[in-house]
Amino acid sequence: MPVDAAPDVTIRPIEVGDRAAWEPLFRSYLDFYKATLTQDVIDEAWTRLMSSDPQFHIGLAAVVTSGHLVGIAHVLFHRSTWSKTYYCYLEDLFVDPAARAKGVGRKLIEAVYAEADRRRATRTYWATQEFNYRARGLYDQLATKSPFVQYRR
Amino acid sequence: MPVDAAPDVTIRPIEVGDRAAWEPLFRSYLDFYKATLTQDVIDEAWTRLMSSDPQFHIGLAAVVTSGHLVGIAHVLFHRSTWSKTYYCYLEDLFVDPAARAKGVGRKLIEAVYAEADRRRATRTYWATQEFNYRARGLYDQLATKSPFVQYRR
Amino acid sequence: MPVDAAPDVTIRPIEVGDRAAWEPLFRSYLDFYKATLTQDVIDEAWTRLMSSDPQFHIGLAAVVTSGHLVGIAHVLFHRSTWSKTYYCYLEDLFVDPAARAKGVGRKLIEAVYAEADRRRATRTYWATQEFNYRARGLYDQLATKSPFVQYRR
Amino acid sequence: MPVDAAPDVTIRPIEVGDRAAWEPLFRSYLDFYKATLTQDVIDEAWTRLMSSDPQFHIGLAAVVTSGHLVGIAHVLFHRSTWSKTYYCYLEDLFVDPAARAKGVGRKLIEAVYAEADRRRATRTYWATQEFNYRARGLYDQLATKSPFVQYRR
Repeated sequence: MPVDAAPDVTIRPIEVGDRAAWEPLFRSYLDFYKATLTQDVIDEAWTRLMSSDPQFHIGLAAVVTSGHLVGIAHVLFHRSTWSKTYYCYLEDLFVDPAARAKGVGRKLIEAVYAEADRRRATRTYWATQEFNYRARGLYDQLATKSPFVQYRR
Repeated sequence: MPVDAAPDVTIRPIEVGDRAAWEPLFRSYLDFYKATLTQDVIDEAWTRLMSSDPQFHIGLAAVVTSGHLVGIAHVLFHRSTWSKTYYCYLEDLFVDPAARAKGVGRKLIEAVYAEADRRRATRTYWATQEFNYRARGLYDQLATKSPFVQYRR
Repeated sequence: MPVDAAPDVTIRPIEVGDRAAWEPLFRSYLDFYKATLTQDVIDEAWTRLMSSDPQFHIGLAAVVTSGHLVGIAHVLFHRSTWSKTYYCYLEDLFVDPAARAKGVGRKLIEAVYAEADRRRATRTYWATQEFNYRARGLYDQLATKSPFVQYRR
Repeated sequence: MPVDAAPDVTIRPIEVGDRAAWEPLFRSYLDFYKATLTQDVIDEAWTRLMSSDPQFHIGLAAVVTSGHLVGIAHVLFHRSTWSKTYYCYLEDLFVDPAARAKGVGRKLIEAVYAEADRRRATRTYWATQEFNYRARGLYDQLATKSPFVQYRR
């Protein structure tokens, strides 16, 4: 597997100047899940990403040398009854289709892991659709599929 | 399905006086998952359940007329980039084996739903092991199995 | 688990005199799968069960001391490119709901195993719906869930 | 999806002259499943493919214009208690990695469907590992994943 995954890609926190570049990536991600969010929910998600309040997600951006955003991750550190510190939940992960197969997703996940370590989170996890084969090919390399299934009201 | 599920069972918040009755239920639950938590993690979980800080879980207890606890639920309301309000995550749910098959689990989940509605959570969800057939028999009646699988670092 | 599962139950080949008792069990089994077969398909299934031609299924009956049928199994020995002998496919398995939880299903599967051994089959297998929790509770004790999923045209 | 999938590929029955080209493909397929068969099992599989006895599999070969084999399929028509005719079981399917992503697998499956229609089979099915993402990407286009899981002794 790529030792030098995406050598020209840097992962950094999403910043206020990323607003215009971030929304199309988030919307493409939602499109992938055939999900629709109203503009006010998207605006609110952005406002919270810019907040330093720990109840909200942190945002990570994958940026190429030109400064262009090619990927995003939204990560929530939340409490668990099983942990004195935090669980790290990678809620959203998206890489621009034009920038795929170059290790950008891998770099984003590795940055999530680094942040989880920094905060001494005792678990890092995410969910994906069973048939999201492309993503799972990567996830199988970086993590373990748990035997858990998810129920929703 | 039981219209009068567990008629002698009341669901109420876990209270400070439940400490002695709560720990064996939480420990039995952990045993079921072949999980071990150190005493300080369990103590911390309890302290947080007693806190009103919204970053921590709320606790629900299923209580029979005698006042005896026969079930518990730990519920976290956390932020989501997909929601202006909250997601409701039922992290732990346990019913004393001696009190099973009487609708206690159902009543606890219904109380979680009621609390989720009160807080206008836009999703209520939980995870369970694929082979937890007994629980899934109930969950299939109350919720929908999503196509999501869970990855863990 | 039951060492003396269903002590009053005997497993024997389905015989011509079982015709009247067999059809309701096969039909209940089909009902469980919300499947409908026309009468001529059911008649043909019976005719083939009575045949000794090895291209057809063998039938096993679970019989209580009174002679009453409480369960059936239909088993096909077919060729595989991976085996010089046969694979043993348990296509249909049904136990009368009134006779459940007494080890009848277990005894039927054990009889299938014995027959598979007699014919030196190199694999014995069956399929069940992911959410057939009751049956899977038994199967998990007697066999291993493979990582295979089934596609159908 | 490719209307003219693999225009230079023809599907025809595996023939006696294919022996030398067939074995490496079958062995690569077995390698993929980390399976090992002794030479006598492989020899027997070949002998049976060459037989016209209906208890044995038929073989299909994907051949490029030069006559080179780039894919194989082994198909068993077997009896079912649910069918007056046959079920069509695609046991083995393999495409040379060097010939992938060109529609060869699709053409092989379509040829299986055509043969199943010719024999009036009432079901065509196969199994694949849950994590065989590459193959499942194709299968999802041509077939439906059933809710069935497979148990093996």
